[in-house]
This record gives sequence, C-alpha cells and structure tokens, in this order.
Amino acid sequence: MKYCPSCGKETRNVIPQGDNIKRDVCTVCDTIHYQNPRIIAGCIPVWKDQVLLCKRAIEPRKNFWTLPAGFMEIGETIQQAAVRETHEEATAVVKTEQLFAIFNLPHIAQVYMIYRSTLAKPEFASGAESLETRLFSEHEIPWDDLAFETMKLSLEYYFKDKAAGQFKFRVTDIIQPLFRKNS
Amino acid sequence: MKYCPSCGKETRNVIPQGDNIKRDVCTVCDTIHYQNPRIIAGCIPVWKDQVLLCKRAIEPRKNFWTLPAGFMEIGETIQQAAVRETHEEATAVVKTEQLFAIFNLPHIAQVYMIYRSTLAKPEFASGAESLETRLFSEHEIPWDDLAFETMKLSLEYYFKDKAAGQFKFRVTDIIQPLFRKNS
Repeated sequence: MKYCPSCGKETRNVIPQGDNIKRDVCTVCDTIHYQNPRIIAGCIPVWKDQVLLCKRAIEPRKNFWTLPAGFMEIGETIQQAAVRETHEEATAVVKTEQLFAIFNLPHIAQVYMIYRSTLAKPEFASGAESLETRLFSEHEIPWDDLAFETMKLSLEYYFKDKAAGQFKFRVTDIIQPLFRKNS
Repeated sequence: MKYCPSCGKETRNVIPQGDNIKRDVCTVCDTIHYQNPRIIAGCIPVWKDQVLLCKRAIEPRKNFWTLPAGFMEIGETIQQAAVRETHEEATAVVKTEQLFAIFNLPHIAQVYMIYRSTLAKPEFASGAESLETRLFSEHEIPWDDLAFETMKLSLEYYFKDKAAGQFKFRVTDIIQPLFRKNS
C-alpha cells in the first residue's frame, strides 16, 4: 500500500504507538490500515466412489487439477463460500457433510478450509475458471498434476480416512511450499 | 475505500468484468481491491478446573469479560495467533490442545477460531488491552457480563463437553448478533 484508501494521501509503513507490527499508516489522516490472512474455502465433492476435480483455466497453476475452492467473500459463512465456489467452478450442487481439513499457509497469508461434501446428482460442467471437470476414482487421481499441496493433502486424507471407515478433522501447517507457482 | 492504495487516485464500487460482486476498482490504474472476512483467533486457557478470562480495557465492550482473542496476523498460523493473543492480553503462556470451536459472523465479516488450551503455570496479568485477568470456576463465570456471543458459546460448549467427558469440535453460525456493541 502506497496511498491511503480513506483520503488518498501517502502512507508510510511504521509501527503505530502501542503496536508491535509495522502497518500502513496515513501521513495525513493517521488511519491505520490493517492487513490480515485470507480464507480460501473449498469442497471435496464426492459421487459414490469418485471425487470431482477441476482443471484450472487460470494462473497460478493453469492446466493443473484442483478441488473447487476460492476466496471467502464478505457476508458469507465458510460453508456457504465452499458451496458457492463448487458451483462457480464446476456448476455442481453439493451438500456439505463436514469441515474436514484446515491448512495454514503462513508464507502466503492464506488459510484453506475444505469441506467434505456430496454431489446432489452427477451433473457438472466447467465454470469460467475451469478447462475441464470430471469424476476420478482413487486410482485415477492425477497425483502428479495437482495444482496445490493443499489439494494433494486433502485427497490423501480423504482416501485414507475412507479406507479406515472414519473421517477425522485435521489442521495442517504447510510451512514450506512444496509446489511452486511456476514449476 | 475511496482512493486506490496503489496509485492514490479515486476508486469506484463496480462489478468487474467476469465477476458478480461489487469491488473497489481504481478509475485510473484499474486495480481491483478485494476485501475478505478476517479471522479472530483465541484460546480457552484452562488451569485445573478454572478458565482464564480478561476484562476488556478497550471498546467495543469495554469492562466486559472475554476469552483472550484477536485478529490473526500475516505470517502466522491460527494456533500461533491464538497463543500470541493469550500472551498479549493476559501475559499467559498456554499449550494448545485442540481447535475447539469456529464461529461464522457473516454480518461483520469475521470468523472466530477458538483453541482449547492449558496454562503452563497459573501465572498471568493484565496486558495493555485488559483491565483485569482472573481464573473462574464454572459457577463463577460472569455469564451476564461476557463481551461477545462467541465467548458465551465457547464457554458453554467447553463446560458441557467437560461434564460429558469428551470434547467435540463445532462450527457455529451466528447470524443475528445477540450482543450489541452499545448495549
């Protein structure tokens, strides 16, 4: 941030009085502009023994496969955001079953929140941000062509728990990014 | 937002092409400025049969009691934010046991994430944002003087699960604010 969103004058990045973190503070109106991590909400959409994945039409990681997910919006619950993203990216209608996995990605200030969900019916298509959508059985999952570490882990957890007959809730910290944007 | 944080020129609130939500878009450099919900991380700090609460020294809800909690910062995990806030507000050192409760507050674009935690030792004091800190047994909890609905529910869930001998993880939507800022 270079300019104050409230008054348009220059900001400077300083530690405000009584704080211990540098913030963008307006040099004229003194407004402190806080920045915080963002939530990405998504689904593992299940139909019988298969999971619905989307091939990304946009960067980062264009052409790689992902679970439907995206930034939570103002005015939504996490569950509503996960359902909306699934509809936007795969035109699919899901019923959420359980908040299944949370991932902290502190290096990019993101928190992923993934719901286990069930497709209302096996109907889906590519939304504007997807090139292709299809159902995958476990042995068909394109493990080497997944877009993000969060998606790989979500699917690993899902199939592991499915085999064990019990779904657990997990919070995972991804401190080192194993997938790079340009790899 | 009235002015572009990138270039300082005026923004307007419009639906960008390919989007379906109004965003603040710069009239000069065309940058789209997204706004998203924020995470508030906190703890239920437990010492034997008691829970540590803080009397708020700041608005909103000054003089009311709260669990230690605050906005998650860039670069943190949720757990780190919860532990840091507990240290800032009550100078207490805690070990987190479990992500215990999540609350969606869509009307104010907040998501609360509350950890069940244990005090390392019964040592605490008031941080800059607290007037008083003390341990409460269940029958001493100041139910009518709690700062926020999220805190009331977190404590209700905690004591209910403690009595049942098993701690559950819950996601709760608070659609109607039961506590008002100025009540």
